[in-house]
Amino acid sequence: MKSLTAQQAAEMVGGKLIGNPAVVVTGAASLEIAGPDRITFIGNKKYLPLLSGARAGVILADKELEPELTGEHTFIICSNVDAAFAVILAVFAPPPVTYVPGIHPSAIVDPSVTVGKNVYIGPNVVIEANSVIGDDTVIGAGTFIGQEVKIGRGNQIAPRVTIMHRCIIGNKNILHSGVVIGADGFGFVPGPEGIIKVPQTGIVQIDDDVEIGANTTIDRARFEKTWIKSNVKIDNQVMVAHNVEIGESSIIIAQAGIAGSAKLGRGVILAAKAGVNGHITLGDGVKVAATSAVAKSVPAGAIMVGTPAEEQRLFMTRLALPRKVQRLAGKFDELKKEVQQLKNQ
Amino acid sequence: MKSLTAQQAAEMVGGKLIGNPAVVVTGAASLEIAGPDRITFIGNKKYLPLLSGARAGVILADKELEPELTGEHTFIICSNVDAAFAVILAVFAPPPVTYVPGIHPSAIVDPSVTVGKNVYIGPNVVIEANSVIGDDTVIGAGTFIGQEVKIGRGNQIAPRVTIMHRCIIGNKNILHSGVVIGADGFGFVPGPEGIIKVPQTGIVQIDDDVEIGANTTIDRARFEKTWIKSNVKIDNQVMVAHNVEIGESSIIIAQAGIAGSAKLGRGVILAAKAGVNGHITLGDGVKVAATSAVAKSVPAGAIMVGTPAEEQRLFMTRLALPRKVQRLAGKFDELKKEVQQLKNQ
Amino acid sequence: MKSLTAQQAAEMVGGKLIGNPAVVVTGAASLEIAGPDRITFIGNKKYLPLLSGARAGVILADKELEPELTGEHTFIICSNVDAAFAVILAVFAPPPVTYVPGIHPSAIVDPSVTVGKNVYIGPNVVIEANSVIGDDTVIGAGTFIGQEVKIGRGNQIAPRVTIMHRCIIGNKNILHSGVVIGADGFGFVPGPEGIIKVPQTGIVQIDDDVEIGANTTIDRARFEKTWIKSNVKIDNQVMVAHNVEIGESSIIIAQAGIAGSAKLGRGVILAAKAGVNGHITLGDGVKVAATSAVAKSVPAGAIMVGTPAEEQRLFMTRLALPRKVQRLAGKFDELKKEVQQLKNQ
Repeated sequence: MKSLTAQQAAEMVGGKLIGNPAVVVTGAASLEIAGPDRITFIGNKKYLPLLSGARAGVILADKELEPELTGEHTFIICSNVDAAFAVILAVFAPPPVTYVPGIHPSAIVDPSVTVGKNVYIGPNVVIEANSVIGDDTVIGAGTFIGQEVKIGRGNQIAPRVTIMHRCIIGNKNILHSGVVIGADGFGFVPGPEGIIKVPQTGIVQIDDDVEIGANTTIDRARFEKTWIKSNVKIDNQVMVAHNVEIGESSIIIAQAGIAGSAKLGRGVILAAKAGVNGHITLGDGVKVAATSAVAKSVPAGAIMVGTPAEEQRLFMTRLALPRKVQRLAGKFDELKKEVQQLKNQ
Repeated sequence: MKSLTAQQAAEMVGGKLIGNPAVVVTGAASLEIAGPDRITFIGNKKYLPLLSGARAGVILADKELEPELTGEHTFIICSNVDAAFAVILAVFAPPPVTYVPGIHPSAIVDPSVTVGKNVYIGPNVVIEANSVIGDDTVIGAGTFIGQEVKIGRGNQIAPRVTIMHRCIIGNKNILHSGVVIGADGFGFVPGPEGIIKVPQTGIVQIDDDVEIGANTTIDRARFEKTWIKSNVKIDNQVMVAHNVEIGESSIIIAQAGIAGSAKLGRGVILAAKAGVNGHITLGDGVKVAATSAVAKSVPAGAIMVGTPAEEQRLFMTRLALPRKVQRLAGKFDELKKEVQQLKNQ
Repeated sequence: MKSLTAQQAAEMVGGKLIGNPAVVVTGAASLEIAGPDRITFIGNKKYLPLLSGARAGVILADKELEPELTGEHTFIICSNVDAAFAVILAVFAPPPVTYVPGIHPSAIVDPSVTVGKNVYIGPNVVIEANSVIGDDTVIGAGTFIGQEVKIGRGNQIAPRVTIMHRCIIGNKNILHSGVVIGADGFGFVPGPEGIIKVPQTGIVQIDDDVEIGANTTIDRARFEKTWIKSNVKIDNQVMVAHNVEIGESSIIIAQAGIAGSAKLGRGVILAAKAGVNGHITLGDGVKVAATSAVAKSVPAGAIMVGTPAEEQRLFMTRLALPRKVQRLAGKFDELKKEVQQLKNQ
């Protein structure tokens, strides 16, 4: 059985030990349920009230919470508690699932496909003509890869993913199950006898170190490309429309949607269920609050809230409106009385 | 051809017959299109105006609507018309699709997998090493089940479902097509050279009698488990993030989303497109209106509306604000005139 | 290499040439990046500022923008620039991916299935008993088609689609990857011992010339049918609940959701993330703005905005409320001063 002393744990994560260095833990658990032989963490002040009843042997705590820590616990103070706890989990968690390189006999890989070294291609995977799969890539069971797709090195593609024809996936990306890359963009024009489909002749290009969550869809461009740049992290059930560009290190949280031809700068954050209108630009570092929808282009650094989204300050004014009107109505009634008194005089 | 008299139908559903007990019906149809040989139902007062033109032979009606029923129809008054009509449909509807137990020769089931009795494993199903499939479970074509998954008795798993490694599915659950259980939670921390992925080492646990709609995604926990308790019913395209807990008999309607580590009590209802913030608690029986997003913890029984969600009473005040301001502006103009008259004197 | 002169391009699209008819282009590109050997287009006035730096050899421009065009460019003025540019793209874009008719040996097609002429059935497709596949239909790899499904002529069904038992797909429809047709509607009733599932015994019927985006779900009816009429275009991740009807030529944009038994007329437009309540009717041509949710039935032609949605005019009033209250508060303060002066006199 694996075990760590508080001292060993503190050294592993480079943290400051407060309490008993000799405490031994043999597993990790959450603050609420961890017993004396478990190590846990606290990273959010919402959980501070749980400290009074906590029984964990060792508690990693974020530096920012240090002044507020209470109780006779053994703490390890960390500058980045999430990263530190990941190090601890790597000791106690079950090992990650891995696959031995090789092509499962049930996979249907066109003879024209180029497959790199140390590639795993799972059961029932289909790879169509002229595609390329780079070294060290894992392709999970039942995934479909269309014609002329280019996939680079070190990608982890889950079971049951779709990558349609001609799309380009760079290196070290993670695609979760149910992802659909390269379905047609949604383009129609009115015609003399009804709605006419606009051919979607472009592709999706995903650069490096991108993660894409389960059942997210990224549509191919009308022409040229829909472009997800390096280090972008996309959560589940996100919709990225045709010709969108998402800048480096942006974070797009679950169920957000980005309409056609919108351009997001570097380090943009869309919180859950946020929306971005088509043909607009979000500058670097723009943050959009959960469920908010941005209608117009916004400059770098803006924090946008509400629908249609406005700057946070304006949104707070709007939020406070019922109280403001209530106060105004009260003051009005007083003034009316004063006027009445004047008239009576 | 199957047929029922009104009398027989009333007895089957334990309802009160009003009208002609001898009317014969040979099928079910909706109120709008049902002819004299059809049985139909009315359960929502929105449809009362349709009664004047209705031609159905027999109409099941909800007890609550009885005082408002009109027309020379044969009615059967039921205390729960939806349940009653389900009984009638079971007579006339085509039989449910069933599968003869057995493992399709195209299924790829690792030799280490334990398969119970009366199990159906469809074409192209993939089940990886060390998983367990309980008795009487049906696994539809093309479904993927990862390593060390435990699936209990009597589950109905549709075609094209994903259940990732180590997740636990209890008994008598229904998973619809496109469901993804156990993709990685969305966890990242800022690192010295960019965004670093936080390993998601936990699982998803689904208890008993849970239904999960098409293309819904339930992410695995960072550690420990994301937990869907018994009798929870989840609609299509719902997003459940890592470490969420959903209490017994909760109902989560389409396109709702629940952020990481949120805890929902028993009997919570999230209407369509509702959102729940991370790290908060919804008490037992909380109801969240459609499209509303709850930012902070709320106690048992609260009815929350709007974004950020507030109690229904406060939301109604906000909704009425334009009218209130209009009235205040009108009263202000009158007062201003009075003041002007005073000044003129 | 393919090439066109400006003159040839103008003739192909039936447009009016302004500038040099002899310019030769050998490809298409977007306005921002097109060089002198590229043809591009401008169809949205948001992009007019880009004209000053544009280097494209030929620019298709929408008739409505003609008065605002600037710079020494060769323009082709088109009455419908999107349709015109699609004609040009058909010259330069890579050819669409096509499949040679035939049934892949890995497909598992029940012997009772009727397959028409010129049908392509891809690798690992599963088609269950008594289904019918019409002429000229393409079924992509890994798609699942349940029992007794009827699929007409000329459909393009992408890889990894699910069509559950007894559903009916007409002619010339396009279904993108991840689509789930015919999962159970979400119907439950309270029972003496908990929540009871209401059997969903109906089907989904899709008429002709419908397009359905990636990971969209359309649930089967409780009984009778969920009905998508001809020429409806549905984007990605849309949720259509049981017994919904969508009228001809309606357009449903990404992540919209339509609750059970709602009926949409002809030519309705739901913008992205819009919601429609259950058991209501939207008249012909109703437009619902992005992220707006319609709670009550609305007559033909209405433009609905906000949540709960109201007519656009009312929504604009609500939007302007903070400014209105601010002005009222300012006027109030002035009046208060006047009253004070009167009192001082």
